[in-house]
Amino acid sequence: MSQNDLRASSRVIHGHGHESVAENLGRIAEWCRDAGVAFDAYGNGDLIQRFEAEVAELLGYPAARFMPSGTLAQQAALRIWAERAGINHVAMHPTAHLELHEQRGYSHLYGLKATLVGPIDRPMLADHLAEVPEQVAAVLIELPTREAGGLLPSWDELEAIKKAGRDREARLHLDGARLWECGPAYERSYAEICDGFDSVYVSFYKGIGALPGAMLLGPEDFVAEAAVWQRRSGGNLYTLTPNVASAAMQFEERLARMPELLERARVVAEVLAAIDGISVKPDPPQVNMFHVFFDLDVEAALGARNRVAEELRLWTFGWVVPVDVPDTCRTEIYIGEAAMEVSDTDIDQAFRLLMSTHRD
Amino acid sequence: MSQNDLRASSRVIHGHGHESVAENLGRIAEWCRDAGVAFDAYGNGDLIQRFEAEVAELLGYPAARFMPSGTLAQQAALRIWAERAGINHVAMHPTAHLELHEQRGYSHLYGLKATLVGPIDRPMLADHLAEVPEQVAAVLIELPTREAGGLLPSWDELEAIKKAGRDREARLHLDGARLWECGPAYERSYAEICDGFDSVYVSFYKGIGALPGAMLLGPEDFVAEAAVWQRRSGGNLYTLTPNVASAAMQFEERLARMPELLERARVVAEVLAAIDGISVKPDPPQVNMFHVFFDLDVEAALGARNRVAEELRLWTFGWVVPVDVPDTCRTEIYIGEAAMEVSDTDIDQAFRLLMSTHRD
Repeated sequence: MSQNDLRASSRVIHGHGHESVAENLGRIAEWCRDAGVAFDAYGNGDLIQRFEAEVAELLGYPAARFMPSGTLAQQAALRIWAERAGINHVAMHPTAHLELHEQRGYSHLYGLKATLVGPIDRPMLADHLAEVPEQVAAVLIELPTREAGGLLPSWDELEAIKKAGRDREARLHLDGARLWECGPAYERSYAEICDGFDSVYVSFYKGIGALPGAMLLGPEDFVAEAAVWQRRSGGNLYTLTPNVASAAMQFEERLARMPELLERARVVAEVLAAIDGISVKPDPPQVNMFHVFFDLDVEAALGARNRVAEELRLWTFGWVVPVDVPDTCRTEIYIGEAAMEVSDTDIDQAFRLLMSTHRD
Repeated sequence: MSQNDLRASSRVIHGHGHESVAENLGRIAEWCRDAGVAFDAYGNGDLIQRFEAEVAELLGYPAARFMPSGTLAQQAALRIWAERAGINHVAMHPTAHLELHEQRGYSHLYGLKATLVGPIDRPMLADHLAEVPEQVAAVLIELPTREAGGLLPSWDELEAIKKAGRDREARLHLDGARLWECGPAYERSYAEICDGFDSVYVSFYKGIGALPGAMLLGPEDFVAEAAVWQRRSGGNLYTLTPNVASAAMQFEERLARMPELLERARVVAEVLAAIDGISVKPDPPQVNMFHVFFDLDVEAALGARNRVAEELRLWTFGWVVPVDVPDTCRTEIYIGEAAMEVSDTDIDQAFRLLMSTHRD
């Protein structure tokens, strides 16, 4: 059986599960029929504007614009703040999505230069920012810090870095790819978390489980400028209605699930951490995602994963990467709808088998 | 009745008609169910790769990449040719999409400079290119020239400009947003039309009637480079499967319709040109799109359009723009599935009423 087939025929732990394209589009079609949704034209349409207004109100910003991707949204945001400051220099964490996963479009396309701030395995804090001697137009802060296992600064630390940004007259941009996950962690409203950030990007295909889509929020004139960059970059599509509908139709319901997902993440992490040869970070998780480390090299881990799937029809993880410690690798687990359907016993059994099967 | 409702409750002449979001997504869902389509991940997936291979073979290129938009595809193409030549200077028609409709992303984002070549109301020819004294990395040629009413160079003129490009060692890039429409006009295969172009972009949401989507074709290494720019620009989405499926499911069928659409366009243009106060350009149309000029100012034309729709439930056009001649405006009509369902008599009646009603 091919690896894809093995995965497709197994229950999964990471993410929201296996909805097929047909089921997914069928569900969106039905919602659009009930709601009488018409196609937007280049971003103009009732549904898209209503959804932009809904998210803007939730997060406390005057304006919002739905865009195909966060890559587009965030590069545009930093460029606008840079233009306004007359400084093409920004600060971000060394594991920022812009630095690691966007082929440095911020530099090659948007002409920005970056100073990387903070330790690679922990969030950027006010003290780290204080070490940057130059003036920067904007500081990009990601909540939670995904590449550090979903770590969050404490509420006081967050307040302190917001103040530090303001004090040095830099604009603060929030990478809110997983902002939805922060609500239950801070036990604060989304507007309170965003308060003090001049602009924010949020994503809809991760925690919300929609088709690709993002939103950029900020002042009216900022969002109007961002629409120009959206067109320049080729992201002002003929229509984005399927993507918007897929987010709007389940937005409130998925947001309401976040506290349960965090609770489940903490239980799953506890189950895993109790197994010999497995550790989790952070322990306990702060949001419904965390890193899992295996005392296995990459090849052994992948082989064991496949054997577990063959035997138990449970897909323990999708990928692993090597880490600095020899014969150790890690994966990232996002607790979504999928893990709500798998019992602790089954998870325990699968990961224990994973750690034993590689020795066969 | 609002203008949107008026349009929605009328038959239309332009384009492919009124499929609702629900109907459209329902049809895609059903096709995906029958074909067992799975989501691609960032452009990797069976369906997307099969469709890329299908179009690459049809057009005669070694490689192809599906992208969200032509704006992205074409800017990336020109930038790659510019990098290779070490010259950030390209040539294009003054009405090129890049010049008119993309907020000059080619300059603001991609750092390219353009020389505009050829008369605004006719296609760029070899003689026009000969007037450019500087070396350029690439020449962008659009077939047909949309803003000139869908005009095409003759086959000999096309051969001549291809040779002129080669002779001056510039790369030739084909803006094939409406390439599908050129087949019946030239009575040549798509591969013959593309032969001599180093790269080509084609669109799927116009003639093919799919969700937003484009493809960039060229040599293997060129397409691999374009994928890097796709990521930089924020166009490498988590999945594009709904868009790909919507194109793939009807690609062959819609291509096969092109000769009939051209025939229908010529008949509709003849009906319109026979009405006092209306002229068409080109006459006869060369592809299944053309410009229609009304001896009316913009306001009168729009008012008349709405009254015709109220009376006959026929939507004659969507927009008009003023032209240099006083009290004259024009629209663009694309003949697709919609006009196949409206009789010549109904079209004649509607446009005659349009030209008389404004005098009330």
